[in-house]
Amino acid sequence: MPKMLVPLAEGFEEIEAITIIDVCRRGGIDVTVAGVTGMMIKGGQGIEVAADCPIDLVDINSYDMITLPGGLGGTLVLSESENVQSILKQMKDQGKYIGAICAAPLALHTADVLNNDFTCYPSIENQIRIDGYRQDQTTVIDGKVMTSQGVGTAIDFALKIVRQLQGESSFEELKESILA
Amino acid sequence: MPKMLVPLAEGFEEIEAITIIDVCRRGGIDVTVAGVTGMMIKGGQGIEVAADCPIDLVDINSYDMITLPGGLGGTLVLSESENVQSILKQMKDQGKYIGAICAAPLALHTADVLNNDFTCYPSIENQIRIDGYRQDQTTVIDGKVMTSQGVGTAIDFALKIVRQLQGESSFEELKESILA
Repeated sequence: MPKMLVPLAEGFEEIEAITIIDVCRRGGIDVTVAGVTGMMIKGGQGIEVAADCPIDLVDINSYDMITLPGGLGGTLVLSESENVQSILKQMKDQGKYIGAICAAPLALHTADVLNNDFTCYPSIENQIRIDGYRQDQTTVIDGKVMTSQGVGTAIDFALKIVRQLQGESSFEELKESILA
Repeated sequence: MPKMLVPLAEGFEEIEAITIIDVCRRGGIDVTVAGVTGMMIKGGQGIEVAADCPIDLVDINSYDMITLPGGLGGTLVLSESENVQSILKQMKDQGKYIGAICAAPLALHTADVLNNDFTCYPSIENQIRIDGYRQDQTTVIDGKVMTSQGVGTAIDFALKIVRQLQGESSFEELKESILA
C-alpha cells in the first residue's frame, strides 16, 4: 500500500485538503495527516481538522509521496517551515512523488523542487515563474511532480494521484464510484 | 446574512460536508456545524472534524436552511436521531430551505419532508421511491428542497445553495473564484 503524507498548517484550504485525503484513502493509499501548527488545525474557512500525528514524528523514508493543499495562509507557513522544506528536499532527492495545489506550488518553488512544467491558482505563477506555467491544464504532471489549480480541480488532482500510485483501473473505478 | 445548519454524525462523507460548509461560507452564508454524535466527529474516511456546537443547543428558529451531507453511516444516524428528524419537520413547517446530498435524501424521506422531485446517490432511490427520482440532474431543486447526487456533484450543489440564498451575482463570482 503506497503511503502519502499531507501536512496541514493553519489557513489551509479545506476542500483541497479533505478531497486529497478522502479520495486517496478511497483509492487504497495510506494517507497520514501531519500537523504543522499543532494537532488541531483550522483552515481558511474556519473548519478545524484533527491531525494523525505531529510533523516532527514523521519518518519520511517510509513515504512514497508528499502532497500540499493550498490556501494562501497555510502555504506561507509551509514555505517558511524548515521542517517541511527539508522534507520536500529529501523527497525530491529520494525520487519520491511530490504534489501541490492552488497556492501551494509556491512552497515547492521555495524548496526548489518543482520541475519545469507546473500549474497553480491563477496569479500565483507571478511569485514562481512564467516559464513552464501551464494555465491550460487543470493538473500538470512533470516527472514525479504533480501540481493543480485550486478548489474546482481538487477531485481531478486527487484522482490523478491515485492513477499515478495505483494504476488505471483503480482510477477508473474510483472516478465512477464518486460520480466525478 | 442567511444562516445554515449542517449537522454532522459519525460516518459523514467528508468531501460533501466540507464542500458545503466551505463554499457556503465563501458565499457569505453563516454556517453552523452542529455535532450530532459529539463535538469531534469522524467521517467515513477517518477524518475528524470539530463541530461549532452540539445540535441540542441550536435555536432552529434563527436558521434559513438545514443541509445534510451524505455518507451512509452518517445518514443512518441522521435518520434515527429524534432531534434531527424533529428539526427537519420544523424547518419544513416554517417554509425554510432543506438540502441533502448522496445518501442523505433518505433522512429527508424518513422525516417526510421531500417534495416530489429529488435526486440522490444512484441506488439509494430504491430505499426512497422511484416516482420523482431524477437521475439526469446533478442537483434537483423542488420548491425549497434541494438534493444532489454525491462527492462529484458537491461543488455544484453548494454553489446552487449560494445562488438560492444569495442570488445570481454571488453565485457567478464565487464559481469563477473557485475555478468551478
